[in-house]
Amino acid sequence: MFSACGVITLTTDFGPQGPFVATMKGRILARLPEARIVDVTHDVPVYWPAEAGFWLARAYSYFPEGSVHVAVVDPGVGTKRDIVAVVANGHAFLAPDNGLLAPILTKVPAARIYRFDAAHAGSKFKLPVASATFHGRDIFAPLAAEIAGRRAAPADLGPETHDIVPSWVDEPTVAADQVAGVVITTDHFGNLITNIDGALIESFRRPMVKTGGHSFALRRTYGDVSPGEFLALVNSFGVVEIARAEQSAAEALGLGRGAPVIVSNGA
Amino acid sequence: MFSACGVITLTTDFGPQGPFVATMKGRILARLPEARIVDVTHDVPVYWPAEAGFWLARAYSYFPEGSVHVAVVDPGVGTKRDIVAVVANGHAFLAPDNGLLAPILTKVPAARIYRFDAAHAGSKFKLPVASATFHGRDIFAPLAAEIAGRRAAPADLGPETHDIVPSWVDEPTVAADQVAGVVITTDHFGNLITNIDGALIESFRRPMVKTGGHSFALRRTYGDVSPGEFLALVNSFGVVEIARAEQSAAEALGLGRGAPVIVSNGA
Amino acid sequence: MFSACGVITLTTDFGPQGPFVATMKGRILARLPEARIVDVTHDVPVYWPAEAGFWLARAYSYFPEGSVHVAVVDPGVGTKRDIVAVVANGHAFLAPDNGLLAPILTKVPAARIYRFDAAHAGSKFKLPVASATFHGRDIFAPLAAEIAGRRAAPADLGPETHDIVPSWVDEPTVAADQVAGVVITTDHFGNLITNIDGALIESFRRPMVKTGGHSFALRRTYGDVSPGEFLALVNSFGVVEIARAEQSAAEALGLGRGAPVIVSNGA
Repeated sequence: MFSACGVITLTTDFGPQGPFVATMKGRILARLPEARIVDVTHDVPVYWPAEAGFWLARAYSYFPEGSVHVAVVDPGVGTKRDIVAVVANGHAFLAPDNGLLAPILTKVPAARIYRFDAAHAGSKFKLPVASATFHGRDIFAPLAAEIAGRRAAPADLGPETHDIVPSWVDEPTVAADQVAGVVITTDHFGNLITNIDGALIESFRRPMVKTGGHSFALRRTYGDVSPGEFLALVNSFGVVEIARAEQSAAEALGLGRGAPVIVSNGA
Repeated sequence: MFSACGVITLTTDFGPQGPFVATMKGRILARLPEARIVDVTHDVPVYWPAEAGFWLARAYSYFPEGSVHVAVVDPGVGTKRDIVAVVANGHAFLAPDNGLLAPILTKVPAARIYRFDAAHAGSKFKLPVASATFHGRDIFAPLAAEIAGRRAAPADLGPETHDIVPSWVDEPTVAADQVAGVVITTDHFGNLITNIDGALIESFRRPMVKTGGHSFALRRTYGDVSPGEFLALVNSFGVVEIARAEQSAAEALGLGRGAPVIVSNGA
Repeated sequence: MFSACGVITLTTDFGPQGPFVATMKGRILARLPEARIVDVTHDVPVYWPAEAGFWLARAYSYFPEGSVHVAVVDPGVGTKRDIVAVVANGHAFLAPDNGLLAPILTKVPAARIYRFDAAHAGSKFKLPVASATFHGRDIFAPLAAEIAGRRAAPADLGPETHDIVPSWVDEPTVAADQVAGVVITTDHFGNLITNIDGALIESFRRPMVKTGGHSFALRRTYGDVSPGEFLALVNSFGVVEIARAEQSAAEALGLGRGAPVIVSNGA
């Protein structure tokens, strides 16, 4: 079930320039003056829905139940790509059907999916004629306001579906004593963040994290090693991360998005 | 007419560092606790009011009527440059009188302009003694709060005027079968955004967009061409844009702000 | 005394990527739906609490009295470093005890300091089990919400203390006719901002600002010199700054954080 609380989060690849994010907020406030809008990030790598979905799937539960999460990384805007709404664990998600929301469904198999019916829902919600290049402002923002304001349910957007575009990044490969994944992103500190869930290696007695020819033991926190030393840990979003205390692991190792990472049971 | 709705937008060249934008918000909230503040962008090129004005003139109508739009790109802060308030289509604008608001007036000839009278309005609105270098915080923020909170009208700031500093960028030159403008900015994707209004080329049968020795046909959206191909389109803010599908046109063409662009009727 | 007004400010070194700041906001809104959250800056140099403290000490008074200021620059997260709350001039501050809040105490000697007692306050405020690497989200955000919502006072966090980790940057050295400090940060315009308070040089008849082998006279504002000329001034936050009109002084002089600056009385 979904019961809107008035919070709307925004995740895009629009960056800090221009009024792109701002006009989405303007359209939301025009329909729902009391909306509480939170920027998740607008620095997802451009045209790369996988990172937006990765972070949303890991971050949404820290927002109040009843939040509406809008994610617009949308290289196919204006083409025949669909728009989908997902309801999972009391949260609603709106995004292009381009694989962005796949990580939510992987984590919440019971999620419900609704496919936006432009002809029907567009007139029902009095959407403006959408531009061909900015559905974030012309479609997503008004829909989010209607849902967050309890004037529409996600199910009102269109028919339920079970078929959604898969993620652009494979889930990790799990073997008996080894899990193989990739670096999904780096953060502002240069930490290399993988898509390997800590739960997958919980049974390992002495997990060793290998990437780029290096091997790192698993620690609890950055301060467990001296500044400049490398380490691996299960980070605050529950995934394996490779770090360098008070320095950038990404820069020092010359690694980034897409680098293969293997965690093996060194016991 | 202008009837404040409590929304205040901020457009500056202050960037993400330091507490510059934040202290403007602090001053607004001190006077108007219920203000709803939206950042338009703080990444306008430094000292370049033309881009702030371009975006504001194109973006303001997506905010609720009754919004107060504050724009501070202000190389002349502390000198004798004036401050002006503009009321246009139910929105209010506050900016230094340095050409920033000229694009609003070009689009809304019926706009009213008021020149801030520091001696009179300063005491009326209990403004603090302003620093010589940060009027955004010391003058613009308090004025915006007073107007957004309906305790002052734009006309209370000072006498009406019809004389305002013109834009630093010329409007496009319009001939029978040709419109000549410039790239006014690039966005986060590297799209080259011109100051040529789509309406100016509406009658062209086969518009060709020329810049830097290249020529591009007009399409509807990015996905109309294959990734890596160039295209031109009238973008979601109504102006001609040169793009490269899923890549940066600015980088590939080596073009940016100020580059001449000509749209001709190839029919 | 401290009487919360519902405003919470956030200062971190988390940058624009990922959901780090956003999940702090999510946790705040989950406990205090009506919280008004303002980003001070998230672009403090990574692992450098001194700049966060410098800006907070200079900026907090522009926010409404009763604001809660959360600052998380926290290289020691998850280790035995403490968390402290400071109450100064009607504002509350929460930060790791790593020197970050020292500049507040230098400016407000009457400030009260409370040391967070995780065992006691953690259960009292129903804090979640904290991750080892993100106390901003797991501890600071919930505490800020409790204080901003008037359900807790800063004194409820733990015992009062008078002993706090000192700043990583020395206060300026003051002699009869000379004050010696450092560049503490540069802003988005490339202005070099020092830790030398304007009050320290008020009695100087002809203050000369020296750095990197150059010497600059004190002016009132940027527009007092021609574009491209250098100047010094006491800026809008009350400290000595070296600037270049409409250009970047930092770039032109090749100077930045840590550069020694001397102001002498040239009279």
